[in-house]
Amino acid sequence: MKIAIVGVGLIGGSMAISLRKTGYATHLIGVDKNPANAQKALDLNLVDLTMTLEESLTVADIIILSTPVGAMVKLLPFVLDRISDKQVVMDVGSTKEAILAAIENHPNRGSFIGTHPMAGTEYSGPEAAIEGLFDEKCTVFIDVEKSSDYTHQVAKELYQALNMGVVYLDAKEHDTHTAYVSHISHISSFALALTVLAKEQDEKRIFELASGGFRSTVRLANSSPDMWIPIFEQNRDNVLDVLDEHINTLAKFRSLLIKKDFTKFYQLIEEANDIKRILK
Amino acid sequence: MKIAIVGVGLIGGSMAISLRKTGYATHLIGVDKNPANAQKALDLNLVDLTMTLEESLTVADIIILSTPVGAMVKLLPFVLDRISDKQVVMDVGSTKEAILAAIENHPNRGSFIGTHPMAGTEYSGPEAAIEGLFDEKCTVFIDVEKSSDYTHQVAKELYQALNMGVVYLDAKEHDTHTAYVSHISHISSFALALTVLAKEQDEKRIFELASGGFRSTVRLANSSPDMWIPIFEQNRDNVLDVLDEHINTLAKFRSLLIKKDFTKFYQLIEEANDIKRILK
Repeated sequence: MKIAIVGVGLIGGSMAISLRKTGYATHLIGVDKNPANAQKALDLNLVDLTMTLEESLTVADIIILSTPVGAMVKLLPFVLDRISDKQVVMDVGSTKEAILAAIENHPNRGSFIGTHPMAGTEYSGPEAAIEGLFDEKCTVFIDVEKSSDYTHQVAKELYQALNMGVVYLDAKEHDTHTAYVSHISHISSFALALTVLAKEQDEKRIFELASGGFRSTVRLANSSPDMWIPIFEQNRDNVLDVLDEHINTLAKFRSLLIKKDFTKFYQLIEEANDIKRILK
Repeated sequence: MKIAIVGVGLIGGSMAISLRKTGYATHLIGVDKNPANAQKALDLNLVDLTMTLEESLTVADIIILSTPVGAMVKLLPFVLDRISDKQVVMDVGSTKEAILAAIENHPNRGSFIGTHPMAGTEYSGPEAAIEGLFDEKCTVFIDVEKSSDYTHQVAKELYQALNMGVVYLDAKEHDTHTAYVSHISHISSFALALTVLAKEQDEKRIFELASGGFRSTVRLANSSPDMWIPIFEQNRDNVLDVLDEHINTLAKFRSLLIKKDFTKFYQLIEEANDIKRILK
């Protein structure tokens, strides 16, 4: 398959590495509105050649949109306007309702499938691409009944080549679930980082004691605002819901500390320990 | 050196493994008020033999207290009452003001040194002990001017055997710093776990999408309440301060979402990205 990767960063670049390795991609075309990024992707051998978006649409069998989600809303109608029914378009974005709304009634809607491979790191750009990022993880296919059978089949084969399992959700479910298991983790990390960085103003040596536990909870605070602000814009309502609930839970801990109710605090930690079911 | 480990769990057990391997410990004595734990430590070959606390104090050159910090406040005066000036006692607890206050005017205060090796995992008990846990990490020596030169020297040699660097702090600094770079990370993880577990009541499939980022921010929620409740009891005031600041930071994000002020939100993420200095 000739595959165009539109936005050759962490996700697009890591897909390129694996799709080349498994032989699923015969030609990898890099498209990036930032010429330096495109050149870097070429230098790193992530892609075989670079093209403009328009050029890539005349040759690619599969077009994967892996830009920040704000750009996708504009790119997607532009791409669907220009493809034949032998081409398949998919996105890999972290939000879905806004993206799918942008092409809801497009005549080529069937050639598109919304997907979300649940994998990533806190780094971004072509140099962040790594081999095996998706291996044995799961991807989501969204509102799949609006895609043609051919489109669905191609997406299944592509993610099989990446060695990923598939979960089927509708756009609303997807955006709620990701707010809970991904977006709030990022807000929590950004906030923790800011809290401790603020304290560093007075206590210069505060980070001398930072060890694995701290690193684990703040590593996502390295994540790029260019990627995350459009996610928070598009998924604002769900993120607000979960953020309210999270602040309430923290306020409960605060109240128990104030009242020195360590019996109830103990019980809440025992309840939280149930997370081991998920972390296994 | 004959070393008694009082409380053979994750930390005590992991110290035993490394102190045996480097040859610093010639005899390792396991002491645990829970006989099953002591037996497990023996079965796992963490220690050479088990004894009662009283017995161990008649033979050990170094006594390491690695129990939950609530027990230490009671154990420490009992131990100092029974040792000679050729013995050295140290604790490895996560809080220091309450522990040091308990022996402030003890005639054998010089034989004691408060230490805190900054390493751990979310697991506990003898079976959680692992080799190399402390390697190239740092330990804190607290209020070292109240320890004799001999005690200080022995502690330096022991942590050198564990391949750890030493940071010197007073008890108040230590307890403030750990509230910011360790204790709040645990509260944040417990709260995130509870928030998403509560949502699971309505959305059974919510965890299907949980990937590396979520795992990273909630893994500490596996931590034992038996270890953490005494830490929150003893360090309540500092933990309340940082929890208030953390809730305020989250409330700022909430307010920006409500107002759709994504320009300011972008700036805050850029500020949070400065955490990369620490995570390197």
